[in-house]
Amino acid sequence: MNILLIHGPNLQLLGRRQPEIYGSQTLEDINSHLREIASQRSVDLKTFQDNSEGAIASFIGDNIDWADGVIINPAAYTHTSVAIRDALSAVNLPVIEIHLSNVHTRESFRQHSYISPIAVGVICGFGAHGYDLALDAMIQILQTSD
Amino acid sequence: MNILLIHGPNLQLLGRRQPEIYGSQTLEDINSHLREIASQRSVDLKTFQDNSEGAIASFIGDNIDWADGVIINPAAYTHTSVAIRDALSAVNLPVIEIHLSNVHTRESFRQHSYISPIAVGVICGFGAHGYDLALDAMIQILQTSD
Amino acid sequence: MNILLIHGPNLQLLGRRQPEIYGSQTLEDINSHLREIASQRSVDLKTFQDNSEGAIASFIGDNIDWADGVIINPAAYTHTSVAIRDALSAVNLPVIEIHLSNVHTRESFRQHSYISPIAVGVICGFGAHGYDLALDAMIQILQTSD
Amino acid sequence: MNILLIHGPNLQLLGRRQPEIYGSQTLEDINSHLREIASQRSVDLKTFQDNSEGAIASFIGDNIDWADGVIINPAAYTHTSVAIRDALSAVNLPVIEIHLSNVHTRESFRQHSYISPIAVGVICGFGAHGYDLALDAMIQILQTSD
Amino acid sequence: MNILLIHGPNLQLLGRRQPEIYGSQTLEDINSHLREIASQRSVDLKTFQDNSEGAIASFIGDNIDWADGVIINPAAYTHTSVAIRDALSAVNLPVIEIHLSNVHTRESFRQHSYISPIAVGVICGFGAHGYDLALDAMIQILQTSD
Amino acid sequence: MNILLIHGPNLQLLGRRQPEIYGSQTLEDINSHLREIASQRSVDLKTFQDNSEGAIASFIGDNIDWADGVIINPAAYTHTSVAIRDALSAVNLPVIEIHLSNVHTRESFRQHSYISPIAVGVICGFGAHGYDLALDAMIQILQTSD
Amino acid sequence: MNILLIHGPNLQLLGRRQPEIYGSQTLEDINSHLREIASQRSVDLKTFQDNSEGAIASFIGDNIDWADGVIINPAAYTHTSVAIRDALSAVNLPVIEIHLSNVHTRESFRQHSYISPIAVGVICGFGAHGYDLALDAMIQILQTSD
Amino acid sequence: MNILLIHGPNLQLLGRRQPEIYGSQTLEDINSHLREIASQRSVDLKTFQDNSEGAIASFIGDNIDWADGVIINPAAYTHTSVAIRDALSAVNLPVIEIHLSNVHTRESFRQHSYISPIAVGVICGFGAHGYDLALDAMIQILQTSD
Amino acid sequence: MNILLIHGPNLQLLGRRQPEIYGSQTLEDINSHLREIASQRSVDLKTFQDNSEGAIASFIGDNIDWADGVIINPAAYTHTSVAIRDALSAVNLPVIEIHLSNVHTRESFRQHSYISPIAVGVICGFGAHGYDLALDAMIQILQTSD
Amino acid sequence: MNILLIHGPNLQLLGRRQPEIYGSQTLEDINSHLREIASQRSVDLKTFQDNSEGAIASFIGDNIDWADGVIINPAAYTHTSVAIRDALSAVNLPVIEIHLSNVHTRESFRQHSYISPIAVGVICGFGAHGYDLALDAMIQILQTSD
Amino acid sequence: MNILLIHGPNLQLLGRRQPEIYGSQTLEDINSHLREIASQRSVDLKTFQDNSEGAIASFIGDNIDWADGVIINPAAYTHTSVAIRDALSAVNLPVIEIHLSNVHTRESFRQHSYISPIAVGVICGFGAHGYDLALDAMIQILQTSD
Amino acid sequence: MNILLIHGPNLQLLGRRQPEIYGSQTLEDINSHLREIASQRSVDLKTFQDNSEGAIASFIGDNIDWADGVIINPAAYTHTSVAIRDALSAVNLPVIEIHLSNVHTRESFRQHSYISPIAVGVICGFGAHGYDLALDAMIQILQTSD
Repeated sequence: MNILLIHGPNLQLLGRRQPEIYGSQTLEDINSHLREIASQRSVDLKTFQDNSEGAIASFIGDNIDWADGVIINPAAYTHTSVAIRDALSAVNLPVIEIHLSNVHTRESFRQHSYISPIAVGVICGFGAHGYDLALDAMIQILQTSD
Repeated sequence: MNILLIHGPNLQLLGRRQPEIYGSQTLEDINSHLREIASQRSVDLKTFQDNSEGAIASFIGDNIDWADGVIINPAAYTHTSVAIRDALSAVNLPVIEIHLSNVHTRESFRQHSYISPIAVGVICGFGAHGYDLALDAMIQILQTSD
Repeated sequence: MNILLIHGPNLQLLGRRQPEIYGSQTLEDINSHLREIASQRSVDLKTFQDNSEGAIASFIGDNIDWADGVIINPAAYTHTSVAIRDALSAVNLPVIEIHLSNVHTRESFRQHSYISPIAVGVICGFGAHGYDLALDAMIQILQTSD
Repeated sequence: MNILLIHGPNLQLLGRRQPEIYGSQTLEDINSHLREIASQRSVDLKTFQDNSEGAIASFIGDNIDWADGVIINPAAYTHTSVAIRDALSAVNLPVIEIHLSNVHTRESFRQHSYISPIAVGVICGFGAHGYDLALDAMIQILQTSD
Repeated sequence: MNILLIHGPNLQLLGRRQPEIYGSQTLEDINSHLREIASQRSVDLKTFQDNSEGAIASFIGDNIDWADGVIINPAAYTHTSVAIRDALSAVNLPVIEIHLSNVHTRESFRQHSYISPIAVGVICGFGAHGYDLALDAMIQILQTSD
Repeated sequence: MNILLIHGPNLQLLGRRQPEIYGSQTLEDINSHLREIASQRSVDLKTFQDNSEGAIASFIGDNIDWADGVIINPAAYTHTSVAIRDALSAVNLPVIEIHLSNVHTRESFRQHSYISPIAVGVICGFGAHGYDLALDAMIQILQTSD
Repeated sequence: MNILLIHGPNLQLLGRRQPEIYGSQTLEDINSHLREIASQRSVDLKTFQDNSEGAIASFIGDNIDWADGVIINPAAYTHTSVAIRDALSAVNLPVIEIHLSNVHTRESFRQHSYISPIAVGVICGFGAHGYDLALDAMIQILQTSD
Repeated sequence: MNILLIHGPNLQLLGRRQPEIYGSQTLEDINSHLREIASQRSVDLKTFQDNSEGAIASFIGDNIDWADGVIINPAAYTHTSVAIRDALSAVNLPVIEIHLSNVHTRESFRQHSYISPIAVGVICGFGAHGYDLALDAMIQILQTSD
Repeated sequence: MNILLIHGPNLQLLGRRQPEIYGSQTLEDINSHLREIASQRSVDLKTFQDNSEGAIASFIGDNIDWADGVIINPAAYTHTSVAIRDALSAVNLPVIEIHLSNVHTRESFRQHSYISPIAVGVICGFGAHGYDLALDAMIQILQTSD
Repeated sequence: MNILLIHGPNLQLLGRRQPEIYGSQTLEDINSHLREIASQRSVDLKTFQDNSEGAIASFIGDNIDWADGVIINPAAYTHTSVAIRDALSAVNLPVIEIHLSNVHTRESFRQHSYISPIAVGVICGFGAHGYDLALDAMIQILQTSD
Repeated sequence: MNILLIHGPNLQLLGRRQPEIYGSQTLEDINSHLREIASQRSVDLKTFQDNSEGAIASFIGDNIDWADGVIINPAAYTHTSVAIRDALSAVNLPVIEIHLSNVHTRESFRQHSYISPIAVGVICGFGAHGYDLALDAMIQILQTSD
Repeated sequence: MNILLIHGPNLQLLGRRQPEIYGSQTLEDINSHLREIASQRSVDLKTFQDNSEGAIASFIGDNIDWADGVIINPAAYTHTSVAIRDALSAVNLPVIEIHLSNVHTRESFRQHSYISPIAVGVICGFGAHGYDLALDAMIQILQTSD
């Protein structure tokens, strides 16, 4: 069971600023924690972060033959990227969209997601713990669809 | 730790129709399963289902002194009920909104939720398993906020 | 041949106010007249009126095994009730939507119906006579689909 | 009692294509059937089909002194013709608008009708049988208004 | 002179929560105070609170022969209930709409009222004192229309 | 000086119905009156009425080498005809748009004109007298542009 | 027969700038010319120009007992002034709205007029000659309504 | 306790036209009546009417050190004046907005108020009696905030 | 291989006006050139031009049994004709939509096409050369679908 | 080099209220400071403040022959005044629009400016220092265009 | 004659997935085929594919002195990239926009193109054959503009 | 005092094309000039240009510990980049947004900026001179906030 865990733009700054809001965990802390849980459940997890829309689309396309599912926090690209949506559609895998904060309480332009309509499900508002939920959900999906 | 689990309109029909879509679990199956998990984690779970917007608002108000958190699948009232939103706001408890299906892939009027802006988080698209995730998330929230 | 005839909120007041607009027939007059015609054509007609959205949804769900078709005047819930729409979809029967007045000549929010997209057909503007037309149409539909 | 029965553009093709959708009846079959029912009820029925918006408007104006009521299936012109609406308003007769299919289940531009606001009532979704209902309703209207 | 005083959903919680915002008066305090003023001015006041849209619509209809005027704080149903609007229209009495807070300073969905277009007048933003103003205004209206 | 005077759909009914609204003048009365004034001022006036959008577009194109200016009451086609607009643009002549009634006081769909943006000027609301004003204005325009 | 001729903001600059666009006539040239024509037809014409919305509204109110009709070029206030509209409605006189240019060919915010819905008729696009047409039309209206 | 009572454009005409609609009271009648009530309750009331948006804004600014509260019927400027809104915000006093008629039953452009979002409360639809209610409400507000 | 080549309203004027914009080719020049190319590739081409929406719809319906594909420049009817769209849908043939100019650089109402959603493909902006491209594309489509 | 410096409504209150927000500088402080800088750079600066839209439009028109450029802080009239826009267009001079605060962070109706489309440039958000920048920019523009 | 052929994001996946939809041709197959045709017509073709918006904009800018025309399939960036539009505008060359599928039959957000308004023409819906048509059209354009 | 000066996509082409519009200065000319002024005022200026949204976001994040303020001309990304907005928000520094041209006179999609709501201020329309103004403003801001 091979799962991609993709982090969108500016998430490389996690833990370096405003820890009272975003927590003190760095992105690497989150990735390590997820990889540990994944290995306990015999899942191979490949993590990726990039600030470039094109780089994320390329990463998705490059893993077309390896991945069984995609967990993605598209961050700002949630609201503006048709290219990432199309890449996810092209590889034709189950997608879980995740956000650290509850986007519904923020600016109105964050209410629209290009990714949600092609995702299996969406999780938002639970901070870093949301990644645990997403991994749990993805494993459930992949086991069920076998 | 006292949690309300509220099911909105038409969910009493779960398992009786279209099992290939909604699964063969009845609402009671789901409730029993959740109560079992809850008791393992020392949580008191009160479940409720009603087709009436007013009855749901009343139930929320009636439990104002008992409950510590609310997990709600508002079903059709997600999109139309300011009354339930206000009831949830009035009791001032953490709320998790849950949907069996991914509402973002359905009719456009289901894209708007009156509940999401006052919820802590939203989970959708994972079928009955989403209730497990929601319970897990709610316990996490209540433990953290202690 | 079993047909449900459902009247939405406030229709219990028919004939009691503004007879120059809505006619002097009470809802019971209409129901009696329809039952008579129905019995002449060997149709079993069950009538129902309620002000509660939930009660109407429940009534539809409760008759899931009895009814062959539904004639409904959803009144105010035409424009706001996803729950009644979902109930009608769930029972998966032919639905005819009827309005006493021509809704197209009234306020703009009455131009939108949640029921029409899942109905077989719509009849509006013919007063109480519209129920006769609806019953005739429903019998035709049920005979054809046999 | 003189009634116009007007069919809009492309309805001359009825019965020649896609009989599984539109039925195998040709427009002439429908017209003959209606004329027969009309004569049984002592009604004089004049039928007309044209693909040209202007020709339909002219036909309505030309019958200004003959007709007592108009049954019209405006087809595509439902959504685009102010000219036919104005012609119907000018002759100042009761109008019944009819559609073979339920327009509310089709493309969004078909949800708007220029004709409905000046019609007495609207019937849609009952196939060719809808013409029988419309004729019945028109006779009722003309008898009542005597 | 008989006046209905109707309170919409969640107002049963008044005075029990957030007194710094909504004041420490309970709904019963407000009702008692109003009844006292009413009796001083020889007015018969019947008060009612319910969380159910259908129950409020029913209450209005049930008092069709008793009431001379209606003062209503529709709360959340202000923005969603066509059913209550229709009930008020059906009884054909002068209606005064009242809100405790100034709805124009709150979320945009609260800017729209289904009730205002069928009310004589609207009062908002004066807290419980607004009920005094509404009662004064209603007596003035009923005296003038005699 | 050669001027086209074009009347749109349904104007052939002028004077035959609702004289209290549209006056008792027939279209021929108006045309005769205008031709008389035109001949007094040495203007050659060609009049035309048709209910068909295509026929009006063709008439404009056919007079491409004869006409110096166009006075048009597009009636219903004001709001729906890009074809007549394109025909008027193609012949590249000064156009005056005229309406008998003040379209700004009628239905909202009559507020939009496809013709106004390519006209020199617009006159509306003065009944048949508006044609006199339009002829006067057109002569002024053609004399000035010489 | 007493007629007000009102010019809105910035029209005091007419003839001083861009004569190739607006002509070389000053506002006084136009007023003199109109007064001459008016006196020939035994009409008393009172002219007024002001850059202030309030001053124009006051001028209209001040002439409530003198005037029989109002010709107004509201210029910029066409699109923004409810106060002038209300003043014109309050005096309850026939109003003709006039514009030098064809507003339909300019910025989109100039397509909307607060004045047109309460005017008898509108004339635009004929430059200063439009005032002659408006005076002719107003005399016709006042003579007819006698 | 010093209160400003401001009347917007065209209200100087009150009582002079259409008394069957707006009543036979002149603005001075209303002001006198209010001043009398004010003096009975030891309130100093300064009244002002102007047709100019700028004059009203100036009046508000000029009384920045005198006034404790503002009662304003902005009339037409309700819908168009950001300047009056900004003046009211700048003086930072409690504001009550009042309208003689129920604006919610009039043209759609009257549904929007620039003043309501910065007012304490709004009263509309009670004619001249509404001023009494507004004065009563303002005194209550000022007494409470002491 | 039988192909219809249909030209919409006003295209009969091609080459007679503004050759610097539309070129000096007449419609007949274009048709002759296309017929020549068609015959070289063993294709039977039937050409048609009409200014009437109804005539174009009729022409399409009349060739229901002859044609294998349709190349259409709907001109102004692109933006307004549901009737031509419905005719093209009814005959159920591959359709190529073509425009001489790039409609995306023109007025906003030309950005919407009723024809594009039911066409195989669209070509615009290449002048008369676009017809060569369309014919080449249609032959390719028909060869592939054999 | 002659420059107009125009301040819109309510700016006469600067420095008298809320100095922590708008600073303690009065409008006269700003004007004096600007005049000093202007005189150092051999620029003649004429300053003006008014609460009336019409007075500002008149001031602009009155200086048509004196001024070489206009710096304007239109304040509330930014969003509502076509008259000031038209006055600025009529005098045909370079215009710089300035705001003390960043309007993009305030209410949505402040996002639209009638002035920006006819200005050379816009400066906002820098408080009183923005006037220095605007004067510097205007001198640069006038020197370059010599 | 030097032509750029640019392919937008995710097109590197062509031929690797869903060949029944997009055909079995890889992007390299298409490029080779086009280069062959180009060389037959003495055209120098430079091909480029990238998933990054910035890389595509850079490629266009880098070829500012080499290219005579641009054929571009912007894929997802059609709907979101102002940067690519600005790059194409800056190099000021004829642009042909091409899409494999008919975008008018897909999601509504794909109906809008930032590129079309600055393109000479648009071709969509003809699969890989569309590139042949685009190359033919570009050669025609460049030959004509010589 | 450390300031970032960031130039968005296509600005590397400045001075190479259309010097009559954008001036003959290259981006390097502007940067050199700004660095010179900066050094005179003891400011350390780091300049950056990139066509990639992700690269700009990364550059901002990478300088999180070095910079005191950001001057940015986001060019095309002004209107489409939430990622750059989020990067600017994350580093939590004062931002000045600058544009060479007045965006308010260009296409409507350029009227919206994702950056303005999180900027201190905005400067547009003054060409390269705008950078001098921005640097002056930023120094003023940083000195004041010390």
